[in-house]
Parts: sequence; structure tokens; C-alpha cells
Amino acid sequence: MTTARTTTLNPGSDLSQVLELAQQLRVDSVRASTTAGSGHPTSSLSAADLMAVLMTRHLRYDWEAPDNPEGDHLIFSKGHASPLLYAMFKAAGVVSDDELMTTYRRFGHRLQGHPTPVLPWVDVATGSLGQGIAYGVGIALAGRDLERRPYRVWVLCGDSEMAEGSVWEALDKAGHHRLANFTALIDVNRLGQRGPTELEWDTGAYARRVEAFGCRAIVIDGHDLQAIDQALATATDGQAPTVIVAKTVKGRGAAEVADKEGWHGKALPEDMADRAVAALGGIRHLRVRGPQPPAPTPTPAPDVRPVELPRFDVGDKVATRAAFGAALAALGARPDVVALDAEVGNSTYAENFAKAHPERYFQNYIAEQQMIAEAVGMAVRGYRPYATTFAAFLTRAHDFIRMAAVSQITMALCGTHSGVEIGADGPSQMGVEDLAMMRAIRGSTVLYPSDATSAAALTATMADLDGISYLRTTRGAYPVLYPSDETFPVGGSKTLRHSEHDQVTLIGAGVTLHECLTAAEHLAADGIQARVVDLYSIKPIDTATLARAARETGALVVVEDHHPEGGMGEAVLSALSATGAQPAFAHLAVTDLPGSGTTSELIDAAGISHAHIAQAARALLRH
Amino acid sequence: MTTARTTTLNPGSDLSQVLELAQQLRVDSVRASTTAGSGHPTSSLSAADLMAVLMTRHLRYDWEAPDNPEGDHLIFSKGHASPLLYAMFKAAGVVSDDELMTTYRRFGHRLQGHPTPVLPWVDVATGSLGQGIAYGVGIALAGRDLERRPYRVWVLCGDSEMAEGSVWEALDKAGHHRLANFTALIDVNRLGQRGPTELEWDTGAYARRVEAFGCRAIVIDGHDLQAIDQALATATDGQAPTVIVAKTVKGRGAAEVADKEGWHGKALPEDMADRAVAALGGIRHLRVRGPQPPAPTPTPAPDVRPVELPRFDVGDKVATRAAFGAALAALGARPDVVALDAEVGNSTYAENFAKAHPERYFQNYIAEQQMIAEAVGMAVRGYRPYATTFAAFLTRAHDFIRMAAVSQITMALCGTHSGVEIGADGPSQMGVEDLAMMRAIRGSTVLYPSDATSAAALTATMADLDGISYLRTTRGAYPVLYPSDETFPVGGSKTLRHSEHDQVTLIGAGVTLHECLTAAEHLAADGIQARVVDLYSIKPIDTATLARAARETGALVVVEDHHPEGGMGEAVLSALSATGAQPAFAHLAVTDLPGSGTTSELIDAAGISHAHIAQAARALLRH
Repeated sequence: MTTARTTTLNPGSDLSQVLELAQQLRVDSVRASTTAGSGHPTSSLSAADLMAVLMTRHLRYDWEAPDNPEGDHLIFSKGHASPLLYAMFKAAGVVSDDELMTTYRRFGHRLQGHPTPVLPWVDVATGSLGQGIAYGVGIALAGRDLERRPYRVWVLCGDSEMAEGSVWEALDKAGHHRLANFTALIDVNRLGQRGPTELEWDTGAYARRVEAFGCRAIVIDGHDLQAIDQALATATDGQAPTVIVAKTVKGRGAAEVADKEGWHGKALPEDMADRAVAALGGIRHLRVRGPQPPAPTPTPAPDVRPVELPRFDVGDKVATRAAFGAALAALGARPDVVALDAEVGNSTYAENFAKAHPERYFQNYIAEQQMIAEAVGMAVRGYRPYATTFAAFLTRAHDFIRMAAVSQITMALCGTHSGVEIGADGPSQMGVEDLAMMRAIRGSTVLYPSDATSAAALTATMADLDGISYLRTTRGAYPVLYPSDETFPVGGSKTLRHSEHDQVTLIGAGVTLHECLTAAEHLAADGIQARVVDLYSIKPIDTATLARAARETGALVVVEDHHPEGGMGEAVLSALSATGAQPAFAHLAVTDLPGSGTTSELIDAAGISHAHIAQAARALLRH
Repeated sequence: MTTARTTTLNPGSDLSQVLELAQQLRVDSVRASTTAGSGHPTSSLSAADLMAVLMTRHLRYDWEAPDNPEGDHLIFSKGHASPLLYAMFKAAGVVSDDELMTTYRRFGHRLQGHPTPVLPWVDVATGSLGQGIAYGVGIALAGRDLERRPYRVWVLCGDSEMAEGSVWEALDKAGHHRLANFTALIDVNRLGQRGPTELEWDTGAYARRVEAFGCRAIVIDGHDLQAIDQALATATDGQAPTVIVAKTVKGRGAAEVADKEGWHGKALPEDMADRAVAALGGIRHLRVRGPQPPAPTPTPAPDVRPVELPRFDVGDKVATRAAFGAALAALGARPDVVALDAEVGNSTYAENFAKAHPERYFQNYIAEQQMIAEAVGMAVRGYRPYATTFAAFLTRAHDFIRMAAVSQITMALCGTHSGVEIGADGPSQMGVEDLAMMRAIRGSTVLYPSDATSAAALTATMADLDGISYLRTTRGAYPVLYPSDETFPVGGSKTLRHSEHDQVTLIGAGVTLHECLTAAEHLAADGIQARVVDLYSIKPIDTATLARAARETGALVVVEDHHPEGGMGEAVLSALSATGAQPAFAHLAVTDLPGSGTTSELIDAAGISHAHIAQAARALLRH
């Protein structure tokens, strides 16, 4: 081990010192991964020069005060280059050499294999490639258009991930919004996980794509510190969103692995690591204090006005999607609420918000992944995003929603046009998988109102929930069931019909609740008393009410306009399994492939109409 | 109603006749949607000229023999323009005017709101925008590189959908593979669902993007028949994948709605429809016989060699992902099997296939949506695709998998690196939502082997299943449990340990099955006899064995390396709910956010290790 040096670099340090820093980042990347026995040193080495110049001269960031709202944001889209990021943390003095060497990738520690916001200097979890630029665009939009702060957003990308369409959705938006506070650096090291990338070192091809999508491209040698410095300076000229296309060598500085296939995601064996560290000049302990952000300006007192939710008259026919839109517009009285659309705002009624609060409405056109990523970026900055599209099309953004949960993001999603209920448009537009998708998101809340009053109330409730919440709405208009002062706690339910002699419980939500109510009337005409439960909260679920219904009526029919897997039926079974309640059980759900038709035709064909519900109830009672 | 004319157009018909056809397509689009009371006439009118020229002069297609393998393929990526497509079917003589006018969008009929392969002239269901080009690339690849047939692939796109990243993933691949048999037509009508598109009529911007992604762009006036004809002729010159960027007017020909906002997805009221039809020259009944494909060449007898699956020795430690890779390579003896990768073939072991059968291996780089779409395109052409990536990253392609089910496609998917079992890479790489996602896909089969023998056997079985099948594999190596001649029927299970005095049944798959076996040993040491079931088939599921276990042991513990929602536990509860079996039940699954660590640390922290299983079993027995 060489002697520790304690030089501190600052923005005025000359490039020969910055090169020392770059070599330190390389050495620490090699050491950290070798001691951990896994990791991605070669992917770190290619970008070390880029990051050394950035953190010394351009990244305006106070590592001791990561919450300073004026500070820049740095996103490692190539999250597997975590050794480099953590080496930067060491150089910044916020992580010790000891922590880096003894805890990286170890259980119970924060320096995980891919960065997550468990670390105070990390905004979003990365590791699913192709997402960092999209998040960065969201943060840059928040900074410029919502917060009006001068911070910049920097995103380090790999070249392999440029094959993801989500990258181009995002750069399109950077260009569309002319986000001059946004810079991406593409580390074009030519080698992906399993061999050469599609475009290898064709930096011109990357540049042409970037320019065609409305951003400024700067092609450089990613190991030429002078060129890096100039490119980063240009990027901050306030003129345009910029993508620096940096030609680099994977494994740069470790001669035995540099530009060689077969070394992705592999720690160097100890002997090779020792030789690489020696060749790189040995262990250093340089410190960096780069450009500092301005002191935080006082946040102006927000213009908080009271939220006046829309009111509906019991019996009127109102679509839950319409109630959502009206409630969302009302929620705009809260200055932290923002709304995001994917070019269906007139169908989802999110457009109501656009009319009331155009300055906090973000149109993503048909780009659901980008919509979710922007929501994540805005949530990082403390906003409460509501992102809405058809339930079916939220599946397009599943990986982004999954990763948002890893980032422990708080945001509200609304999926409209759920189920076969939508009618003539046919199966491509019918969300019949969304409950399964959203229930399986870690920490999610899943809500499914049946009337306008509950839809509006739950829309408002979502603004105060932690984590990812999901509201499922319905296309058609159905009678308002509840007076405006009714409350709908998360984890609750409503028993709409009950007696002391209930023989069966019908459980629905959305359109199927209305079918349950009709079925209960038909059963009553036959002398069968049916309890009816509005299961508006699918996750968490009202286990107590379900268990009581199971105990008191002995038979449950759960009806959902969704595939049978992962939806309401299984949520009910899971809840009951922990209680010991063992009722007779029938589960009606959509199993066949629907086509076009009217709502009533399709509901009936799917076997979830009142006639099928009554039939299922009778069959349970016959047993 | 004007008098029916019976003129037949052919490739030699002059453009004035083609204009008549275009007007007929417009008239029929208006009539069909107005009589249906819904639909997208304005989106149809903008593209009528493009389609009239295409079907008369360039689309080599025998409408009476859609299965002719030499025939071209036409995909309506803008599936909402179904009135136009169905009007083309009428012009081709395969759908009657009566069917068009009386069944469009009606229940139980084939002319659905968005086209599906229920129609013999439709390859894939569309309606989730941004997917058609991707499917088209898959079919074009199959045609050129697998079938070696001269057919061409034509895709009609909307301009709004060009905001989807998936479009650029796909055009990138068209360029990368230099698919000269592929042509997309972008109908740049400037107006999306809720207002102007992002790029409006900036055809130059589309062209620059197309060229930057390696395709040839031809910008035309989409209502100039001569220009359309020339562009289509150029597209078939065999030189390059081509994208025709056609500036058009939404609602062209219906003056009251042309280029007006607020008319997306709305049928014209009857009076407006009447005026539009009159202005367009009234009802016509032109017939088209366009260029014909060659007579089918006899398919050469396939070189079918016997499949010799890999064999493993009981007790050896082998990862199921490795067994999958070995089995997939062996399956390559079947000439219809193709494999698709998203740049992780060395991790998923799909690379084994690449080495054995490079001519049937398709590298998509990091583009999961494109990988699935290519698989769909190849399935359309009769191949048996296997598409593989990490289970976590299949979520990126969720909407494509959903739509493949609407298309009733048969394909095999494999998701590797499932669960927290993967270790130090951390949560971004852990598939803990995939069972919920894949179970909720209509008609899916979901398999989850625990050892190499079953993984190899199930990999082979998938080649003969209908619909979408999914194999979940595990990163680490675990003991081989079964001899090579063991069979694994879909819908079955294996009871690995049982006695006449079993007090509890432990149910696992993948890594948790091995934990169950260890737990059973520990329980036995305490005098508790535990049955152990290998639930390798999650959907369909072995209800009989589960019910028997419930009845005979009275207590079940289901353990899964997945979130609790939508996975094995709920699959078991659903299965049992139909049987009346009501065992005591414990469900162990991943609920907290994992970090990095070793497999055993993470399994234990997630509460799914043998210690937790034994504890859960004891707790059930105490009750």
C-alpha cells in the first residue's frame, strides 16, 4: 500500500491533478470489487475520466448537504458502475476507504451492487438499464418549470443501454422541452455484457440520433481530460439539452482486461488487481471539493388553498374516471400536486387538471415509460405526481413502476378503462392484468372505487399515502352510491346490503359491484338474503369485514372484471387464509378472450354479470 | 344510395381509378363507423390514399389464399384505423358490404374495434400503439433469414405512436439487419387523440430520426397518388429498410372534420356522414386484384434430427438456468425452434443455442420489447421462439406479452435470476413480480423447475405447448433431484417426501424447494413428519395433489422467492378454493425490500429459508 496523500482538489485544480483523481477512482473501483468478489470494475474504469472532471469542475454539489435544493443531480444510469460511484463518494469524503473496502455488496450495508436511494447522494435506484435519462428529464423539468432553481442534471449512461427505446422517449422529451439544464454522458466503451455493442465505437451514429431527437451532441475522446472539460463547459452554456458521446475503453487503465471481451461484471482476481493498482499509481486518498451550489434560497410559502372535492348526488350516473378527473383538478389547490398524461387526458379526464393548472400538467404524448419516469423525477423533488393512462397501457411501464418501488418513490397512478366493461374497442384496450401487476409492486396501495363519491375521495387520499398507489377506474357511468360526506379509509370496505340472515356475501368493485347489487335484488326476490361488500381497497384489504362475512354468511362470491390471477379473488383468499375463516367460495373473473360488443354483452359473456353472480350464489348455497 | 359499380382494379389500373378506390375506402370507413356508432373514421381517411395505392399496385397478396407463404404481410400498427382496414377487405372481396355495415364493432363478430387474428388477413392484434413496426421487423427477419422467401412486410403507423420508444427499438433493428423487405408508412396527420401531436407536420424531423436509426426515409404528400406510387416502388428496390413519411390530413375528404381537433375516435353523426359520403362521390363497390404473390414453393422437408436432452446426475449441483440453456441448444435439432436474446445470453445460457445454431439466434441487444415483438413475428410465421432475459427485465415487455396473448401467439419465455436468491447484485436485478405478471397473461403456462432435470424436460415441453409459456429459472446451482428419465407433465407436481403420518406439507419451487427439503429434515429430527411438494407447474396447477395434501396433512406451508401477491401462494389458494379443502395455511414470501448479500443471507432475511419454513410449520401445528 502506498502512502496516503491528503491533497484536496477544487475547481481550480489543474488537469494533471484531475488525472490523479481519475486514477484514484480506477484504483478504488478495482479494489472495491476485488475485495467484494463481484462487481463491474471494467465498466467503472471506462468512465473514470468523465467523472473525475465532472466532480472536480462542473458538478455543483455539496456532498455534506445533499438536501440543498440548489445542488445538481447526478444519476448513474449505468448502475452497475457502482464501484466508480462509490469511489467518487470516497473522494468526496462522505464514504471512508474502510466502508468501501469492507462493505461493498455485503449484506446489511448501503453500498449495494447497484445504487439505491438508501444512500443520501442517490436520487433513484438504477440497474434496470435505459432508465436514468428518463428520470433525469423528470428532475430537470421539475427544476426548471416547477422549482425554478438553477440546478443541473447529469446522467451517466452506458452505450449498451442506448438500445432501449425508453432512452429515445426520454431524449425526445429533453429536446421537446429544450431542457438546457440536462446533460447526459454516454460512456461508449464498445463492449456490452456478452460482447460488442450494436454500434461499437460508431460515435457518429449516436450523435446523429441524439441530434435527430432534438438534443445537442458533442463527440469526444472520453479519456482526454481537456476535451471532457470543454464538453462539460459547453453543456452548461444554457443553450440546449446536451449529450456528450464519449469514446472510451472498457477496463481503461487495467491493461490485462482493457478492451477485452469476457470481463463484464467480473471482479479482477487479486493478482491482476494488484498489478492494475500498481500500474495505476497505487492507492491514493485525494479529496475533492468541487463547485458549490448557492446557499439554499428560502422556499416561498406555498400558495395553499383549500381542496374542495367535487360532490355528487346519490343515484346520478357518473363514471369513476370522470370523478377522478374532477377530484384531481380540485387537488391542484395543493401546490405540490402535478399531473402527467400520455396523450389520453380526454379519456382519463386528467385533462381537467390541465385546464385548471396548466403549469403543473405534463404532456408526454404516447410514451408511458417516460410518463412514469418523469413522475419519479418529480417525486424525487418532493412533488406528488399523478400519472394516468388506460390500465392496459400502464403495463408498458411495468419495469419503471417496479424500479420506482426499489427507489421507494411516492406517486399516484390511475388506470382507466379497466376490464371488458369498456365495450366496443375490444381486448387491446381492456385492462385485465393491472390488479395483478399493481398488487405485486412492493409497498403498493391498490384502490378500486365503484362510484364517483368514493373515486373522488380516494383520489384525494392518494395525495397523502406513502409509496406507489394505484386507482383503478371504469369507463362507463354508474349510479353514485354514497353521499359526499362518506369517508373511505384505505384498507376499509363498505357493506352496502346486509341483514341478520344473510346466506351469502357478494363481493365486487367497479362495475361488478353494481352487478352484485342487482344480483342481490334478484336473490332477495327468491328469498335468498345476500350481503354485498364494496371492496374499494384491494391492498390493503379489509380482512376483518371479509372474515366476518365468511363467518356470518358462510359463502362468498368474489366477482372481478379482471383475469382470475392476482386480482380481487386471490386478494380475498390471501386475506382469509390468515384468519382461519373457511367459507364456501366462488370466484367469477374474465377467462376467455373478449371481443367487441356493448358493456352488458361483454360483462355477460365474461360470466361476471348479475345473472352469473346470482347463479354462483345459488350454486354455493345448494352445496 | 348510388348504383353499385363492379369495376375491378388491377396493378395496371391508372391512378384516376385508384383515386376512386381511395374514395370508396373513405366512404366505407365513414359508413361503417357511423352505423356502428363508434370508431375512428378520421384516422382512416388520412391513410386511404396510401392504402389504395398499396393494395392496387404493390401489396403482393392473394386475399383468397392468405396462407400462401409467399404473400406479403400488412400490419395496421394504428389498429384504431380498423374501418379503413375493413374497407380494404371489402374492396378485396373477402368481406361483404353487408358484413361491414352490420357487424363492425358488434358483439360476437370478427370485425372488432381493433383488428385481431380472428381475421385470416390479420397477423397480429394491434391497438396498443407503437407495436406494429416491431412485429413487422420480426416477420421480415423470419422471411429473409429463416424462410428465405421474397415476401415484403408493410406496416401502417400513426404519427402519435412514433413517441413510443418501442418504435425506435424496432427501427434500429430494421436498420441493423438491413431489412430491405421492410417498409413502414407513417401517416403524419398531425392530430392525436387529444390535440396536435408532438411533431405535428414536421416530416423532416421524422425523416432525420428514421435516417439516424439506419433506415431510408422518403417524405411525401400522402394524398399525392403519384408520389405514393413512386415511394412504394422505391421501397421495393431491395436496397434498404424504408420508412415513408407521408404528410396527410386527418379526416381528409370529410370537410366538416378535416384537420379539426375533437374528432379523434368519433363516428360522424348520420347527417354529417351523409354529406361526407355525397362529397366523396357516393357509395361504390370497386374490387381490387392487386399484384399476386408467386405460387407457393414446396417447403423443403425439414432437417429434423432427434432432440437429445442433456442428462444430469442426481446430486450434482447445476443451475436451472444452465439446464435451460443446454436443453434449448439441444432443442435446436428441431428446425422450427429459434432463440432470441436481449444481450444477456451469457447469463441466461441462451448463448448455448447461439453456439449450436447461430443461424436461428437473434441478438436484440438491450431491447426487451423488441425481443418479444420479434418472437411474435417469428411465431406468426410458424416458428417456435424462445425469448429469454432476466425475469425482472421481462417486465419491460409486459405490454407486448399482453398483446401477444390477444394475438393468440404461441411462444416460450424464460426469465432467469428470479428472486432474492441472486445475491449481491441487489433488488434491481431480482425478479419478484414475474409470477404475478405471467400468471395473469391469458392462456399462459407458468413453470418453475427446482432442478436441472426438470428444467431441461420442461424447456423441451414448452416447444409443444400452445399459447405463451413461461419458465422461471434460478441463478445458483442446486442439487439435481431427479433422474434423467423422470417426466414432468404440465399441471403436475412431484411429492419428494411423504409418509403415512405427514402432519404438514411444505410446498416450494426453485430455491425454496431446496429450503423445504432441508426444513423437512429438521422437522423430522424433532419428530414432525413433513410432506414436501415440488410445485414445478404453477399454471396449470396440480389441484388434486394439493387437495390431497390438504386433506391428509391438514396444514400447508407455501414458500416462494417472489412477492406474496399473484405468485405460488395465491395460486395454491385459488386451486384449493374450488375443492372445499380448508387446511391451516402459512405463506412465506418476499415482502421487505432486499439489498445486497449472499444468497443464504438474503433468503434468510426474506423469511423464506429452511429455518423460517420449519418455524411456520411448527406454528401451524401448534394451532
